[in-house]
Order: sequence, then C-alpha cells, then structure tokens
Amino acid sequence: MSYTRKHLATVEGYVPGEQPAEGGFIKLNTNENPYPPSPRVFEAIQQVTPERMRKYPDPLYRRLSAKIAQVYGVKQEQVFIGNGSDEVLSLLVRTFVDPDEKVVYTYPSYVLYETLARLNAVGCEAVELDENFDLPKRAFSAGGKLLFVGNPNNPTGRGIPADTMGRLCRSFPGLVATDEAYADFSNSSCVSLLRDCQNLMILRTFSKSFSLASIRVGFALAREELVADLMRMKDSYNVNLLSQLAAEAALSDLEHMRANVLKIVRTRTLLISGLAALGFVVYPSESNFVLAKYPNGSARPLYEELKRRKILVRYFPLRRLEDCLRITVGTDGEVDALLKELRDILKK
Amino acid sequence: MSYTRKHLATVEGYVPGEQPAEGGFIKLNTNENPYPPSPRVFEAIQQVTPERMRKYPDPLYRRLSAKIAQVYGVKQEQVFIGNGSDEVLSLLVRTFVDPDEKVVYTYPSYVLYETLARLNAVGCEAVELDENFDLPKRAFSAGGKLLFVGNPNNPTGRGIPADTMGRLCRSFPGLVATDEAYADFSNSSCVSLLRDCQNLMILRTFSKSFSLASIRVGFALAREELVADLMRMKDSYNVNLLSQLAAEAALSDLEHMRANVLKIVRTRTLLISGLAALGFVVYPSESNFVLAKYPNGSARPLYEELKRRKILVRYFPLRRLEDCLRITVGTDGEVDALLKELRDILKK
Repeated sequence: MSYTRKHLATVEGYVPGEQPAEGGFIKLNTNENPYPPSPRVFEAIQQVTPERMRKYPDPLYRRLSAKIAQVYGVKQEQVFIGNGSDEVLSLLVRTFVDPDEKVVYTYPSYVLYETLARLNAVGCEAVELDENFDLPKRAFSAGGKLLFVGNPNNPTGRGIPADTMGRLCRSFPGLVATDEAYADFSNSSCVSLLRDCQNLMILRTFSKSFSLASIRVGFALAREELVADLMRMKDSYNVNLLSQLAAEAALSDLEHMRANVLKIVRTRTLLISGLAALGFVVYPSESNFVLAKYPNGSARPLYEELKRRKILVRYFPLRRLEDCLRITVGTDGEVDALLKELRDILKK
Repeated sequence: MSYTRKHLATVEGYVPGEQPAEGGFIKLNTNENPYPPSPRVFEAIQQVTPERMRKYPDPLYRRLSAKIAQVYGVKQEQVFIGNGSDEVLSLLVRTFVDPDEKVVYTYPSYVLYETLARLNAVGCEAVELDENFDLPKRAFSAGGKLLFVGNPNNPTGRGIPADTMGRLCRSFPGLVATDEAYADFSNSSCVSLLRDCQNLMILRTFSKSFSLASIRVGFALAREELVADLMRMKDSYNVNLLSQLAAEAALSDLEHMRANVLKIVRTRTLLISGLAALGFVVYPSESNFVLAKYPNGSARPLYEELKRRKILVRYFPLRRLEDCLRITVGTDGEVDALLKELRDILKK
C-alpha cells in the first residue's frame, strides 16, 4: 500500500547534476568553482572545540547574519539563511504560496523552480524567454504569487539589468525572488533595489563564487516582514555550526573570492572563443558557465562521448536545450582539456 | 501588504530551548550530551581537503547511509538522512499527509509534531497520555495518516516496549513514526520491528547520544518505498559534507558513545534521587533528561530563579506541564550544582 500524498504520484523529484563517487573526472557539470575557498575557512573549522560540537548551533545564526548584513549593506533583520539556496527556494514556496495560487518562472531556467511548485502542490506557470533568452514583454504583465527569476539566469547565463528588474517588481502582483547565485560573476545585482521594492527577495549562495558548495549555505535578503515569515517556517536549527563558521570566515576574506572570480571571468573568455572556433553558437555569459549551442542537432552524443572521456558537462533533455551543452568555467587547464577532446570528437 | 499564506496568520512557529549567545551557563535545557563527541569526528573534519570543500556533497550520502545500514542491521535503501531529525519530521508531513488528512501525536510530547502539522496546513489531533504519561487504550483505536510517538517520549522520559509499539503499528491505519532520539539511553528500540511492520518509520539522531547536536544529522529507518518517497521530496544536497563526515566518524566509534551513555545513565540516578530528596515527584526516565514535578504549584518561578543563577532548565507553559521542570542529565558536577541551587532556592 502507498502512503504517499496523492499529487506526488505524477511528480518527479529534481535530479541534480552527476556527483560521481569515483574520482578522475574533470567536473564541468554543476558550476562548482575550480579554485579552493579561502584558507580562513579551514582555520575556522579547525578551531572548533568539542564544547561547541556537542551543543546546538545558534538557531538565529546571529554572527553570520550580522556579517552578511554588513557585507551587503542591509539590516540584520533583512537576512534569512538556509541550508543551501535550495532550502530557501523551498521555504519561499511553502511560506508564501497557497494551493490555489501559482509560482511563475521563466523558461528555460533552473528546473528546480517548477519542481518545487509541483512537489508542494501549488500552481505553476512558465514565461517563455525570447529567442535570445532575454525577458519577453509579457513577463511584465504576468500574474502569480511568487516569481522566480535567475539573474544571471541558469542555464542561459544571461543577466538582467537592475532597472529592468525594478520594472518587473513594480508590475508583478506577488513576490519577486531573484536568484543571484551567479551575481558575483556578473556586473549587476539588485541589492540596491531592496529599499524601494517591497516585494523583492534576493537569493545568494556560498556554493559558486565562494567555492563552498560543500557547506550548503544560501541566503535571502528581503524586507524584515518577509524574513520574519520565513524564520517562523524554517526548522529551528537549519544551518549547522560548521557551515555557519565556514561562511562567516569566507565573508571575512572577500579578496580571495574576488580574485577567483577574476580568474574565472578571464577563463570564460577563452572558453567562449574556443567553443566558437569549433563552430558552437555561444550565448553571452555573466556567470561561471556558458551555454553552447551545437549547430548540428542534439548535443547528447557530445555529452556522452565527453563523459566516456572523463569530462562531465551538463546536458538537459529539455525543449530549447536539446542542442546545447552547459559548461562550467573550470581552470585554464580544464578548459584546454575540454576543447581538445571536443576538437577530437568533432573531427571524427 | 502581507504575502504570507492564509493559514499561517494564526500559526506560531516552534520555539526551541534557549541557546544563549553569552557563555557561563550550565545548560540543562536542550538535552545536549555533556561529554564531547569521539575524537575521530575531529580527525575526519580536519582531514577535509579544499578540493572536497569546493564541490557539492554526495546528494545520496552513500558512505554515511552504508555505515548506518551496517550499524543498525538494515539495507542501505532503508536509510533516509536529513538535516537533523527536524527536517526528517517536516518531510514526513510534507510527503505523506494531504491537507484533508491528519497528523496524530500523543500529548504531552515534542511540541514540534503539532507545530509541523499546523505550519503545513494539515489536520492534527492529540491523543492524551494517561495519568502516568503512558499510552492510553484509545491510542490503539486512533485514526489518521501519520502518528508521531516519542520512544522514549519527550518531555516525559517514558519508554514504550517494542511489543506495544508492534501492536500500535498493527492498529494504526497510517504511518507510525517513532522518534527514537533518546533510544540509546533506554533499553528498548523498535528496529527489530521493521521487518514485520510495513508502516513503521524509526527516527534517530546524532544530537543526543553521539554528542553532535551542532552537525544537524538525523535519519529515518523504514521500508524502501517510504525512503524512496522521502528522497524525491528532499532538497538534493540536504546533508552537507562536513556533517556527513562527522556522522560517519561517530559511527565508527560506538564505544565512545556507549561509554558516554553509561556515565549519563549513572548520573541520571543521582539526579533523580537528589530531586526526590528535595520533594519533587520524578517520573521514571529512559532518556538523558528527567521530568520533575514540583508539588507546590507552578514551576515557573523555579525555572526563572535558576536562570538568574546561570542554570538553564526547560519550563513548558503547557497544560499538565506547568508544575514540571525538564532537566537534562549533565555531568555529575553540573547536577550537583543544580541540586545545590535548588536546595537553596527551596529553603527560602
């Protein structure tokens, strides 16, 4: 007998990019940072005492939220922290969207937005991006309770200027959650809009620019009332001690993060020109990955052959993306290796 | 304007026990283990490499679930791991209970069971424990989709024999989730029932006997289909890398945990007799805390005066518990200090 909730019978869970148990892969499939996190992270972790390990962490993560508030120029009460952005996204749906309301998201975008709506049995609607993967006019007349907008968007790499985001916030009747997971690789951010846009929530993560995908810390910046609602809904101790310490240490060394971002942005240029030279159509990217369109049909065989050669990239068997690969910007060496294998594959 | 879901207007969040930011307290309020975790935990954490820190953790936490399966004698596919038991409890409600169904729990018990039902807008019903805080007859005729039973129960400390739990599983029409957070301090566990009871889920945690409240790892043991449903509903990377490593290391040193449990069980006897000598009615405990009834009315003044003297215990302003304190079994020294202060307070 099944005990599962009725609506789940037809919903599939989110399938993350492969995380192979065995080593030896060049991993360009889940947008991890190829460079190590700040040494201060390791110092912080290694100084943890048995006395702190045996106790619960601060359920209000006061030191970390104070640090985030300081770095991003908001009040501490405007900071909500989760067990990765994934948890923040899930809590947004569970806190703000009733079953008779809907989640709206652009397409193509991070698949999890739709998955979360379906898992939580609320309505959902996609707003189709235009032929360049930019926001279409009709995004500004969309209705709904919660709008997810990646900025820069994943997997397209496209950014949205802050003034466009401001217009979107003014036109949308519900909450606008802009996922800035990749904003450090871009030139724009909407943090400055928080003062004027009461319905704006900005999502950030330590998984990309800070090289800390392992620790699962993401956060939202929003006005105090919205943060208070999320605090009531979250598990009491949703961010563990070591992750709080690691994130705080990473924020105390922004130079380290920025230097890594600079290197990645430089390598991104090499990757884009290399792919273009091989005949791919490469979309402009403001993130640590590029979306490359293979002009000769499905990109699946390329993905599979690269995997056989121990290079993982991301292939999405989804409408408008079947002929594309999403490739994380690795080190120069990793990008060289990728281009070399691709050249060899395409020759045959 | 408020964007919050309609039902949340009247629901309060769960309020965990105080976690004071400043030091100097004797903390006997949140059932933390007074002894440090295994040294192997620190070795595991300190060996983590930058290469692993920058990457996502294993979303299927394969090494940790294999270890849990081995220790508890179940198949790996029967193990579900969460960001603390809190997340597992929340996922149970969200995966198995529809809005027109109900969560059932005994009263008094862990307040979070009811809070989770209310936060998730499903029905809820309490089954009142009898005058000794034991399961009443009517528990065996209760209906509902999901039954939470603490075993040993919190905050009463009472255990339920495995054969009684077996009967409960056979009589309840929905899932029975037995919260064994404190089972290592008891003599009974229901793991052996998993083979026969298709509707049983057993919840465990690293926060109590393993002295690892900081890492937020809890897990459920259940039949494969139930685990598969939870896996679909969870966030992809819900258990971070360092916590996976710490939990695995703790399980490789069961002797350390068992030695700490033995010390706590011995101190529990001292605490119980000391409180009895002061006139408290102390309920038998199979956990790392005791529930002590103050015979002269509300226990709130005692709680407040102890706090003023830098000793935190837990006071619940709830029906049947207003005249009680829940006191965590600390070290012998901490228990002596508590008894000394209580003696002094009661003299006045």
